[in-house]
Amino acid sequence: DLPLTVIAGPCQLETADHAQMIAGRMKEVCDAAGARYVFKASYDKANRTSLGGKRGLGIDKGLKVLDDIRSGMGIPVLTDVHTEAQCAQAAQAVDVLQIPAFLCRQTDMLLAAGETGKAVNVKKGQFLAPWEMPNVVAKIESTGNHNILLTERGTSFGYNTLVADMRALPQMAQTGYPVVMDATHSVQQPGGQGGSSGGQREFAPVMARAAVALGVGAVFIETHEDPDNAPSDGPNMIALDNMAALIDTLMAFDRLAKANPIRI
Amino acid sequence: DLPLTVIAGPCQLETADHAQMIAGRMKEVCDAAGARYVFKASYDKANRTSLGGKRGLGIDKGLKVLDDIRSGMGIPVLTDVHTEAQCAQAAQAVDVLQIPAFLCRQTDMLLAAGETGKAVNVKKGQFLAPWEMPNVVAKIESTGNHNILLTERGTSFGYNTLVADMRALPQMAQTGYPVVMDATHSVQQPGGQGGSSGGQREFAPVMARAAVALGVGAVFIETHEDPDNAPSDGPNMIALDNMAALIDTLMAFDRLAKANPIRI
Amino acid sequence: DLPLTVIAGPCQLETADHAQMIAGRMKEVCDAAGARYVFKASYDKANRTSLGGKRGLGIDKGLKVLDDIRSGMGIPVLTDVHTEAQCAQAAQAVDVLQIPAFLCRQTDMLLAAGETGKAVNVKKGQFLAPWEMPNVVAKIESTGNHNILLTERGTSFGYNTLVADMRALPQMAQTGYPVVMDATHSVQQPGGQGGSSGGQREFAPVMARAAVALGVGAVFIETHEDPDNAPSDGPNMIALDNMAALIDTLMAFDRLAKANPIRI
Amino acid sequence: DLPLTVIAGPCQLETADHAQMIAGRMKEVCDAAGARYVFKASYDKANRTSLGGKRGLGIDKGLKVLDDIRSGMGIPVLTDVHTEAQCAQAAQAVDVLQIPAFLCRQTDMLLAAGETGKAVNVKKGQFLAPWEMPNVVAKIESTGNHNILLTERGTSFGYNTLVADMRALPQMAQTGYPVVMDATHSVQQPGGQGGSSGGQREFAPVMARAAVALGVGAVFIETHEDPDNAPSDGPNMIALDNMAALIDTLMAFDRLAKANPIRI
Repeated sequence: DLPLTVIAGPCQLETADHAQMIAGRMKEVCDAAGARYVFKASYDKANRTSLGGKRGLGIDKGLKVLDDIRSGMGIPVLTDVHTEAQCAQAAQAVDVLQIPAFLCRQTDMLLAAGETGKAVNVKKGQFLAPWEMPNVVAKIESTGNHNILLTERGTSFGYNTLVADMRALPQMAQTGYPVVMDATHSVQQPGGQGGSSGGQREFAPVMARAAVALGVGAVFIETHEDPDNAPSDGPNMIALDNMAALIDTLMAFDRLAKANPIRI
Repeated sequence: DLPLTVIAGPCQLETADHAQMIAGRMKEVCDAAGARYVFKASYDKANRTSLGGKRGLGIDKGLKVLDDIRSGMGIPVLTDVHTEAQCAQAAQAVDVLQIPAFLCRQTDMLLAAGETGKAVNVKKGQFLAPWEMPNVVAKIESTGNHNILLTERGTSFGYNTLVADMRALPQMAQTGYPVVMDATHSVQQPGGQGGSSGGQREFAPVMARAAVALGVGAVFIETHEDPDNAPSDGPNMIALDNMAALIDTLMAFDRLAKANPIRI
Repeated sequence: DLPLTVIAGPCQLETADHAQMIAGRMKEVCDAAGARYVFKASYDKANRTSLGGKRGLGIDKGLKVLDDIRSGMGIPVLTDVHTEAQCAQAAQAVDVLQIPAFLCRQTDMLLAAGETGKAVNVKKGQFLAPWEMPNVVAKIESTGNHNILLTERGTSFGYNTLVADMRALPQMAQTGYPVVMDATHSVQQPGGQGGSSGGQREFAPVMARAAVALGVGAVFIETHEDPDNAPSDGPNMIALDNMAALIDTLMAFDRLAKANPIRI
Repeated sequence: DLPLTVIAGPCQLETADHAQMIAGRMKEVCDAAGARYVFKASYDKANRTSLGGKRGLGIDKGLKVLDDIRSGMGIPVLTDVHTEAQCAQAAQAVDVLQIPAFLCRQTDMLLAAGETGKAVNVKKGQFLAPWEMPNVVAKIESTGNHNILLTERGTSFGYNTLVADMRALPQMAQTGYPVVMDATHSVQQPGGQGGSSGGQREFAPVMARAAVALGVGAVFIETHEDPDNAPSDGPNMIALDNMAALIDTLMAFDRLAKANPIRI
């Protein structure tokens, strides 16, 4: 029962400088709070609501930026992959490969990610029950890879709305793998702004805290120095300046939760 | 930001002795943990899944039992009312009148309850958004009664299933009234056993802890010395013997939460 | 397999003249189309979203208006009851007592309605699975009353939204009782306008047609000569002038459906 | 307003003979009923619930089988693609490329499919509102391809359950493109059997009929001579012997619906 890991970063890579600024700042914040830190950003946003949404730096440039954070700054890095072909390439540059929620049942993606030997973080689909995740896990395990994380990012709840079912956290933990709460995307309002997704930034700390109180292994929180002008997910991001206070509080809850584990 | 109130008791009244045994034990448990305690039980279960489900002692006998707990044991008492006519009568015997979730939009019920001057606890309907509760509150306030509590007890999520949306807690708190988390009914599986409702007892502490971490005013937890043989709600009740440990832990989270209030 | 019954009227009673105008017009429309007709209006709206919503004529005045339509115009009449006490009184004036969706599990209401010997139409709660309706039916049947109708009016689907599950129609028909499609309320957006419910009038004919194609016994459609200025449910009502064309089309689908019954 | 198209076939390709037997039989059935017919089968099931689920013939062998049905039997063929790379290859063998529901927001998939110039049928994700489909359409249209179909296949409704919202059909039709009702998958119970999906075969004709009554362009129905022993989707398939009667009835509803178009 290690201390909480904080997975945080901007939604998508903008520039190398920007990524390093956020990684550096978050590393300081997490070190100060006693949290472990993993940098996360996407080199490509492959499923934007509309065609005109910015997609990011692209895989070659993007992986270079991520590799520099990992090698240069010594910070573990997570990024999401979008096709089987990308898995091996991304595995060169990062520590954790993330399977996007929409793709969590694509067998070949899971196998390709598993075969890299890197840690694989699967986001539970918005259409999936938590008790379906063992089927997902078994696909990855079949590659011999047992370095798996499972993420709750909300479940479809009517149109344009997600709800985070707290029962999913201890339920997924029964697989024996660490569970991550994605506090940013579980408060997303998919397609809620017509050509883009809306969000409820004010509820991200609510989701994070509830999950940490239940003893999750990690929280995922997107952050930006100017969320309202971020190229994607702005409506549900936390301002970088607010992260220190948030993480301090979460660590207090983490210590209490780890001392009082939930058993179901 | 007072310490957490624990509202607890058997689902329905069985006998005077049984009620007093549970009230007495829970009072000790809450005193020891530093929690405030309110006894809850129903004199009538007016909306059992099937006609054959046990309905309880009835209003006259039931209110007598409740009054004895209140007057004789000095323990505040909450019970649910089912018709306008019952409000005035029940108000003689208890401290808090509870409006069942299915009835939370029945204007005359809300007015009748409000007019008693007693505290009124409204359970948010399984069909209601949290942002609709101000309309409910306004109906009660129109009677001059501002002694109101609002309870989250889960929202319809497909058939035979409820989900507790943690966002509802801070959202309802914006009314300025205390918010109660009903940890027992939010893990109910309505109609899930054909002629009766199922439940997931193991998740009641999960719901309670997540809500307490968010700083709610109270939790509601049904308890019984032998849940599997309780006349109703057995599948989601906590065994009386397990309540002390549960409440101790909740109080630790409550202290941390009250020291770190959530703001949305 | 009798021809389709059309249950139609304004949401709430306004004046005697207004009710008779609509009843008379709808009777002509249904006679011309070969449909059976039942007038429906409420004497009281007991669960308006907000306290300020108009509630209607009240029970004494309202039942007088309904009785005049039944006795004076020879048109069968349906109205909804809100408390046990109202059942016997309303039974003097109308042919069908309707149990509102929120109240569909209130045992005493169902018994009181059943005991009048009148036909009882139960609206399936927004929180209920179709396979839970046999429990509801059994409560009414316990009074010796087997004159029962079951209505689909939409199921909670996230916040402020309902969805009508077409599977519910043949499923409820397995009880052996006629099934009614409430085309008006299944396209309601509960609480969707803050202090009142919104609706999607354009989809009421969609719901009605789909249900009639599946062979339902009746459709319920609210109508008003000026929906935008109706005191309640305006957003989902059909204009009176559009009812003739709608019912003509529905009857064509009804004849085809009755000739080709669905079996599940 | 052309007559209804029936898209039908086994879920996955088994052998060339088997595919031709079903294609031949369905062609006869549709010709007799006056329906247009498109054969559908998958060469690969890329997102089976569990790793052990049979995946089919594979792309090379599978496309050969499909090409033979198209060229040899003169029957239009539809198949689903799973990666960008498969689009160009599959386009050699079939008339319509289908984008699976989970992948309906993957921009590069949509572009790759569009660029083949073939008709593209997009299944609306279980997590998507119907009013989000114009964003999907715009991605395909950006390739200059305006040969698009949109399919309703149910929306997430709690866990392990889908619901088909009939409003989605006229709503998607507002794009100007033909709308397809997938009667088979909208009655699927995803993951409902632990290691595989369950289904409710008896409701597929219910969904098909309701949709046809609303005037959809096509229905999609999986069929097999022995559904209980089909390698996938058995629980929700229609037996081949029952297809003639079903399609005859659907065509009667289609004629009536096309003569009475719904306008929203």
